[in-house]
Amino acid sequence: MADAGVDVLLLSHGADLPWLTGYGAMPLERLTMLVLPVDGDAVLVVPGLEAPRVPDMGGDVELRPWGETEDPVALVGALVGTAGTRRASSGVSSRPVRLGISERAWASTLVALQAQLPAATWDVASVVTGPLRAVKDESEVAALRAAGAAADRVALALQGGEIPLLGRSERDVSADIAQRLLDAGHQQVNFAIVGSGPNGASPHHQAGSRIVGPGEVAVCDFGGTLALGGDTVGYCSDITRTVAVGEPSPEVVAAYEVLERAQAVAVAAVRPGVRAEEVDAVAREVVAEAGLGDRFIHRTGHGIGIEEHEAPYVVAGDRTVLAAGHAFSVEPGIYVPGQFGMRLEDIVVVTEQGVELLNTAPRHLAVLDA
Amino acid sequence: MADAGVDVLLLSHGADLPWLTGYGAMPLERLTMLVLPVDGDAVLVVPGLEAPRVPDMGGDVELRPWGETEDPVALVGALVGTAGTRRASSGVSSRPVRLGISERAWASTLVALQAQLPAATWDVASVVTGPLRAVKDESEVAALRAAGAAADRVALALQGGEIPLLGRSERDVSADIAQRLLDAGHQQVNFAIVGSGPNGASPHHQAGSRIVGPGEVAVCDFGGTLALGGDTVGYCSDITRTVAVGEPSPEVVAAYEVLERAQAVAVAAVRPGVRAEEVDAVAREVVAEAGLGDRFIHRTGHGIGIEEHEAPYVVAGDRTVLAAGHAFSVEPGIYVPGQFGMRLEDIVVVTEQGVELLNTAPRHLAVLDA
Repeated sequence: MADAGVDVLLLSHGADLPWLTGYGAMPLERLTMLVLPVDGDAVLVVPGLEAPRVPDMGGDVELRPWGETEDPVALVGALVGTAGTRRASSGVSSRPVRLGISERAWASTLVALQAQLPAATWDVASVVTGPLRAVKDESEVAALRAAGAAADRVALALQGGEIPLLGRSERDVSADIAQRLLDAGHQQVNFAIVGSGPNGASPHHQAGSRIVGPGEVAVCDFGGTLALGGDTVGYCSDITRTVAVGEPSPEVVAAYEVLERAQAVAVAAVRPGVRAEEVDAVAREVVAEAGLGDRFIHRTGHGIGIEEHEAPYVVAGDRTVLAAGHAFSVEPGIYVPGQFGMRLEDIVVVTEQGVELLNTAPRHLAVLDA
Repeated sequence: MADAGVDVLLLSHGADLPWLTGYGAMPLERLTMLVLPVDGDAVLVVPGLEAPRVPDMGGDVELRPWGETEDPVALVGALVGTAGTRRASSGVSSRPVRLGISERAWASTLVALQAQLPAATWDVASVVTGPLRAVKDESEVAALRAAGAAADRVALALQGGEIPLLGRSERDVSADIAQRLLDAGHQQVNFAIVGSGPNGASPHHQAGSRIVGPGEVAVCDFGGTLALGGDTVGYCSDITRTVAVGEPSPEVVAAYEVLERAQAVAVAAVRPGVRAEEVDAVAREVVAEAGLGDRFIHRTGHGIGIEEHEAPYVVAGDRTVLAAGHAFSVEPGIYVPGQFGMRLEDIVVVTEQGVELLNTAPRHLAVLDA
């Protein structure tokens, strides 16, 4: 915090708070906010009726429950004011207090806090927490590994024909995948995209009423959150496999060969010292050389942890130098509007030696019976 | 917008955007933002790979997809700048442009926009949208009614003993309730709280491994989102029933009698012209007169619509004058730490004549076999 010039972190919705404390704010309107000064005691402002849910933090954090007719923004303002006064009286600085707020705190909270603290200056908390959270420790990698293995079991069932596609709606296939994610040990399903035929060309397609037909390919991208035994905070899985229902067309086969190669080349490029954007570049080069560059319409990947998407991002402009513990997806895609889409995604973690793949389900284009 | 002094609405995460357009931003980090000036054309800034998901808006909204290496905050800033210049050149105003951002937009978006637009002043979009969204039209009431009826079916199953509690974990009971919410027609489960025995005293208790025992009461509070056929936007259900597993203690019976009366009196107080806080006051008075005032630790209710919790709030300080179309929960609770909790919740909608209850499951303390 001192290095980043942040005097007080204000952590609400999002992953910073559970990452630090094991307790996450409910995704609702009553304000939960950890007030964490660089040089003072941490106080968790929490709705009174949610206070019983807060686990014991061993005295590291003082609890300040607020009643239904209290103003929690004024409470936070007073706590920040105390921190600012202490800092000023110690001669540390006479500049305005600088605050770092959770990326996913609600804008309404920031608007209210800015009215309460008009002299403060603001940044996102992730200038402090982002680089720390991006590098996973051993227990975090263990949780990501378990989540990846659970997602692999669902991918294997999909590729093995245990989740029928032909003649069923995308929505029903998606529901099957979601149920299997839970059966495999996830506590929560985050998404289960099924994009069949031309719908596959929309990378974030929402599974709908379309019936999967013979000869089509379907993009299946799914993941959930899994907490290891005893942990209150879970880590995410995220995997994509594209399957063909009956023999795919030569165009699909040719494009998939490019896709599989692009993904393999990108995974092979991951090692300490490489920049995140370089991993994107090598994947993109393979697709472009095959004349399909304009069909690869999204970044190659995103960091993953407590959040489905977090730093670093595998995209031009993210110059993060990879180090052991960085975990992210490698997921090139090829999309032909009106015809088909395909994507191949694994989660990887950077090791001292190079890279560990957290997904091991087969990467070829599985062909299901039609 | 002109009345509220807001020049441009900036709508991202949350319900304002789907309420206006039928399209909701994905709850992820790529920026979706509707730029809606008071006197110009609306533009939806949307991630390129999500653009295929946007439904046809009939020419009311221009789409501006952004590519993976573009800066969407700069795009929004330029659109706002154009609006500000047009306004200044028309002589409307020389004050800084005033912007209204979605309550649930991410704080990181607001921090970035403030750096991009340092002269702008900020408020929440809900100064414009809140009062409009709070009053539901006929189609919205129909959706809330359908969601309420679906939740009632699950409540009836619970009260009828079809969802066994005795000897099962809260988590398993919660999973049953969640599945039945889907079976009853919800597209999404938002929560399924099961707080048994002393856990019931924590109003937002997360269903866990505790096994429900004989003679205990359990607070079951659950709801989901239901979109009527053809609609892309769903509305929420939210109901609480407390059930006893075997004969409850005299203390529980006595407290429940107070609870049921408090809820009935509050529902009866709902009609056009009454203030939201008055409904809270009458419920609180009943509980206080029974000597249990300090056991009723939360507000009496919250508005409901596309969001589970939205304006108005049934709490001291919310002076909203109720009008036909206001929809909210009426849910007093009594909580005895270490022993038990109880809550009784229905959704109501204000009518020209008074009030319509959107939940009809029995309100007495159902006693299940033990």
